[in-house]
Amino acid sequence: MMDAVVPQASIAIVCGGGNIPGAIADAIARSGRRPVMLAIRGWADPKLVERHTHHWVAVGQLGRLFRLAQAEHCREVIFIGTLMRPALRQIRLDWHTIRMMPRIVRAFAGGDDRLLSGIARLAEERGLHIIGVKDVAPEIIVPVGVLGRYQPTARDRTDIARGLHLIATLGPFDVGQAVVVANNHVLAVEAAEGTDNMLGRIADLRKQGRLSTSEGVGVLVKAPKPKQDRRFDLPTIGPQTVVNVMKAGLAGVALAADNTIMADAEEVVAAADRAKIFLVGVPEGGAV
Amino acid sequence: MMDAVVPQASIAIVCGGGNIPGAIADAIARSGRRPVMLAIRGWADPKLVERHTHHWVAVGQLGRLFRLAQAEHCREVIFIGTLMRPALRQIRLDWHTIRMMPRIVRAFAGGDDRLLSGIARLAEERGLHIIGVKDVAPEIIVPVGVLGRYQPTARDRTDIARGLHLIATLGPFDVGQAVVVANNHVLAVEAAEGTDNMLGRIADLRKQGRLSTSEGVGVLVKAPKPKQDRRFDLPTIGPQTVVNVMKAGLAGVALAADNTIMADAEEVVAAADRAKIFLVGVPEGGAV
Repeated sequence: MMDAVVPQASIAIVCGGGNIPGAIADAIARSGRRPVMLAIRGWADPKLVERHTHHWVAVGQLGRLFRLAQAEHCREVIFIGTLMRPALRQIRLDWHTIRMMPRIVRAFAGGDDRLLSGIARLAEERGLHIIGVKDVAPEIIVPVGVLGRYQPTARDRTDIARGLHLIATLGPFDVGQAVVVANNHVLAVEAAEGTDNMLGRIADLRKQGRLSTSEGVGVLVKAPKPKQDRRFDLPTIGPQTVVNVMKAGLAGVALAADNTIMADAEEVVAAADRAKIFLVGVPEGGAV
Repeated sequence: MMDAVVPQASIAIVCGGGNIPGAIADAIARSGRRPVMLAIRGWADPKLVERHTHHWVAVGQLGRLFRLAQAEHCREVIFIGTLMRPALRQIRLDWHTIRMMPRIVRAFAGGDDRLLSGIARLAEERGLHIIGVKDVAPEIIVPVGVLGRYQPTARDRTDIARGLHLIATLGPFDVGQAVVVANNHVLAVEAAEGTDNMLGRIADLRKQGRLSTSEGVGVLVKAPKPKQDRRFDLPTIGPQTVVNVMKAGLAGVALAADNTIMADAEEVVAAADRAKIFLVGVPEGGAV
């Protein structure tokens, strides 16, 4: 019988950009399973990918992706890392993808959430099971509570509640995993630009004297979109974002507990303490 | 009897920045009434203000503002022009304002809408009546329909509907008079940065290859916040914004008809035609 030899515990990691795919692979390896990196060309970091069994794929090669996962005996697939939504004309198509094109185009026109859930359905039809970060590496997920040395004030907590409510309200528009709220005013809503760009804008407006709230007031709030498939694309926080929060003159960062990835927890908390900003995991639905 | 001599038709214009206060004053003068410019120091343009009867006031001098309006026999006051929400500590207070401070602070903490409606109530207690642009210069308000040579496509109209819906949804958060929607994706939501800054961001993201939608796709949608007091702070459109829409690679501009100010209509339409973008006034609630 070959069954016992087939590594059932191989997990395919479809790797976009950033360092989180590497952190996930390490967590999988630590738990005694085998990570198989399916690295997206142009996005995944070769240094992280090449530490493990890996294959390179182009954006749009879903057929190849599914075949590689099966050839490597992976029943479970995780999608992780940054991947800017590609323009349709930039996608290099394989035959499998061309056959599925009408469905993909329909999913594409509906926003990220529909695109991702469309891909998940296609994978599941091929016998692959899409899993999330929480399933393989719960240790890199933000917990509830204050994470560093600094505490949010009552005003910060009001700003956090408003930010969470705004992100929840924006859900149907498939936009906004992050907002900045200061003294009850919404200063910025993230869309295509990304969190660090949004924070840079706050820093610029402050330098130009175009913000009415003082330095040290205001919170970056990050949470997944309410209807988002939590197996894909959770918000993330890294040390650079913490530094950008400080440069933007805000008081701290609130992250949706249980649904935000913090790959380098120690580094992030140390950065927040150095920057004298608070860092707190908050329950999305409940009281802050 | 002095009644006939008192110029009942004097209208006080509290002037912020930009050229719209001048356009309003001209419209009032054309209609045979007398504009009295109450120019906010640091914001109002002296060249526009000094063509008419005028007085300078500092931000926060509400008492002086109301006294001047009454001394100039104005029963009606219009607030117009850009005015960045000032930090409380930058406000130069007069005694009247200090007495009203607790109420102003309460209004201030609630967002622009509450601040403005708080000021309106205070004015009305003093016997002044706050009016809007539509009351004195309906000719500079955007009408329903296509305004230039170019027409929105069916896809543009879908994007417009989504943008209007998003702005309506954001209403309770007192944010977002403008959004950019492209092929059903929300690319940007305006908050503290202003429309031209938001469009500059789209142009930058496009240059960096970080937008998935092609050039020539996407719409700038501007509309007042749904609960906004329409006597204050209507969205505006000028030729520079049209140029910025072109630079952002969008297809056109949709404006809430009956609730957007277009002070230089001919210039704006000519700019849109030159830029080959459409310009359309759309009913806020109805079908696009």
